[in-house]
Amino acid sequence: MAVGPSELPVFNIISGVRLGVASAGIKKPGRKDVVVIECPAGSTVASVFTKNAFCAAPVQVAKKHLEKATPRYFLVNTGNANAGTGPSGVENAAKCCASLAEKAGVADFEVLPFSTGVIGEPLPVDKIQAVLSDAIADLAEDNWLSAAEGILTTDTRPKGAVATVEINGQTVKISGISKGSGMIKPNMATMLGYIATDAKIDQALLQQMLTTTTNRSFNRITIDSDTSTNDACMLVATGVSAEINADDAAAVEAFQKALDSVAQPLAHAIVKDGEGATKFVEISVTHAGSDEEALEVAFTVAHSPLVKTALFASDANWGRILAAVGRANVEQLDVDHINIWLGDEQIVENGGRCDAYTEQAGSAVMAKENITIRIDLARGNASETVWTTDLSHDYVSINADYRS
Amino acid sequence: MAVGPSELPVFNIISGVRLGVASAGIKKPGRKDVVVIECPAGSTVASVFTKNAFCAAPVQVAKKHLEKATPRYFLVNTGNANAGTGPSGVENAAKCCASLAEKAGVADFEVLPFSTGVIGEPLPVDKIQAVLSDAIADLAEDNWLSAAEGILTTDTRPKGAVATVEINGQTVKISGISKGSGMIKPNMATMLGYIATDAKIDQALLQQMLTTTTNRSFNRITIDSDTSTNDACMLVATGVSAEINADDAAAVEAFQKALDSVAQPLAHAIVKDGEGATKFVEISVTHAGSDEEALEVAFTVAHSPLVKTALFASDANWGRILAAVGRANVEQLDVDHINIWLGDEQIVENGGRCDAYTEQAGSAVMAKENITIRIDLARGNASETVWTTDLSHDYVSINADYRS
Repeated sequence: MAVGPSELPVFNIISGVRLGVASAGIKKPGRKDVVVIECPAGSTVASVFTKNAFCAAPVQVAKKHLEKATPRYFLVNTGNANAGTGPSGVENAAKCCASLAEKAGVADFEVLPFSTGVIGEPLPVDKIQAVLSDAIADLAEDNWLSAAEGILTTDTRPKGAVATVEINGQTVKISGISKGSGMIKPNMATMLGYIATDAKIDQALLQQMLTTTTNRSFNRITIDSDTSTNDACMLVATGVSAEINADDAAAVEAFQKALDSVAQPLAHAIVKDGEGATKFVEISVTHAGSDEEALEVAFTVAHSPLVKTALFASDANWGRILAAVGRANVEQLDVDHINIWLGDEQIVENGGRCDAYTEQAGSAVMAKENITIRIDLARGNASETVWTTDLSHDYVSINADYRS
Repeated sequence: MAVGPSELPVFNIISGVRLGVASAGIKKPGRKDVVVIECPAGSTVASVFTKNAFCAAPVQVAKKHLEKATPRYFLVNTGNANAGTGPSGVENAAKCCASLAEKAGVADFEVLPFSTGVIGEPLPVDKIQAVLSDAIADLAEDNWLSAAEGILTTDTRPKGAVATVEINGQTVKISGISKGSGMIKPNMATMLGYIATDAKIDQALLQQMLTTTTNRSFNRITIDSDTSTNDACMLVATGVSAEINADDAAAVEAFQKALDSVAQPLAHAIVKDGEGATKFVEISVTHAGSDEEALEVAFTVAHSPLVKTALFASDANWGRILAAVGRANVEQLDVDHINIWLGDEQIVENGGRCDAYTEQAGSAVMAKENITIRIDLARGNASETVWTTDLSHDYVSINADYRS
């Protein structure tokens, strides 16, 4: 199940960025489950990783390798997260990197490993090593769609977004792919995201722009409040097109906007493909005392099982929204000034049911696939928006009936 | 659905405490939905209420009345929470109190109102007023079971517990009832709880002992992380039996222990009757740096939809427990020293899968109705225990198929 139609773009070729896919049979025979992404020499690379204290072996190895060099290859496998696997998990991730490095003629620390799938089982290193040559042989600049398919797990469809922007007289292109469907409350990034551009951007600025875009996209979505051990998002700048310098504010703004226009649909695509999702829900909190307060209220509503089941039922049960706002960890919340809208319908006025509200109007909003909840706290000038899904029978089935 | 057999005791008579029940047809015709509890003159009364910022009209009125006098009557209705109902909700709660006060010959501020049910709909005052005489006529000291039934909403069975203890040569008796099944993450008390004793205890000590017992019982359970707008727990001491003074440490300890032995089974009964519950799960966190840290980890695991669906599936998916521990809001968590047990089986050793662990042993634990998860953080000397349930298809059905 997923909300709305698939919205895959025609991917931009990012000259020099090549992607290759292979089938290692890690979890299911015949499934594309190994993806190699090659970055051209001279690229800059920015990264964000999960803040889960249990970060998986590949995340630990990737961070170590990033300290030594700018990566040339990303090696992704699905079907096994190589998380909670202790020292042997770290060794296994390093072994896979070394094998790919040898075949590609680079140093092992120029390869970053990424794994997604079941937690706590040993990574089948042999299976992955056995298909690395296949993946390398498959490397091509026009292979973005195949790679988008190759990184999926419980996702029902591939996720991609592109942007093209003129900066200082040159055409800058961006392509991105992401995956994620459950255990989604990213805290630095989505489960996995890979974005590349042909702009020339130094590493410090690239990192700053990736962090900014992440806080406007992947760090603002939640499906089930569970932060993965393996979240990672990479941004590669190959440097063959326009150069963007930190002191050129117009160029930075133009690129940031283009980057956001890729990251946001990638993040939204994850929510729309959330496990069991039947609704795509935007929750905005306005006039909060601080950004943190706005996020606390928005995420409390987004995580409330009672709000989520009401969304699944298309039931305009606004009392559950109100109760979730009230239990959010906000000091001295004066409920008598709170207003809440469901779509364009005001449902709560000054902390009570809005006089003009009718059940019929609320039901009409809830019947839609795309639903907006706006909560005005009347405390200050901060605002934040997060995106989430409903809680359906299928979510329970997906997570109770299969080991994921 | 509920976990295990019903465990109703034979209630103790608390001399002078009388309970009466009536049917007002608030939500369903013929259902017992109005309960009156009479406390004898001279009693002391302690109370704890929800910390939800949106506290319901009856909670607001009850707090105001408590400032003026020791209550003589509790008036409880189900089928309507009188929450999110603004100033008219407060007026409606006050009207019901005034009607009962008039019939019973006490001041209106000697009556406390309690409501539970759907949020945001006007309280049907007329229906309640119409049956107050019936409830008064029904008042009897041996009516605890009927009252336990009368306060239920989505609960599938009544909840009660008793204790009898010798203190200073006298027999002290306690009886208690509770209700609650969804929107359960009490933050002062369960949805509703009423406990009475014949001991003689001044109000300050009684309040202290109720707060202590609440933090060992109702404030340590969660079904769906949603704190109700109407939570309340009352403790009445009629004073006809042994006197317990604050400076008599042995007596205080004996009574506290007896009180805990009533409050804990009442709290556990709520979890076992949780909406859609098929498992009763105890989550202990040991060697935490502080009580707050222990609770943060325990509740993060207890609220994780992925842990809860694995519990429903009897799937020993320990990776999900590990991921939930890792995302808990704990500074500088060193995962390499964490150990986790499922029942008596150690599943995680020093942050990784325990070598001796077998999937078969884990599955045997998970197949049971009563499951214990113990997480050792190896950071300090604090420990906490919370109790919760799984997340099942029935939870989604109960909350998506019906307006509650």
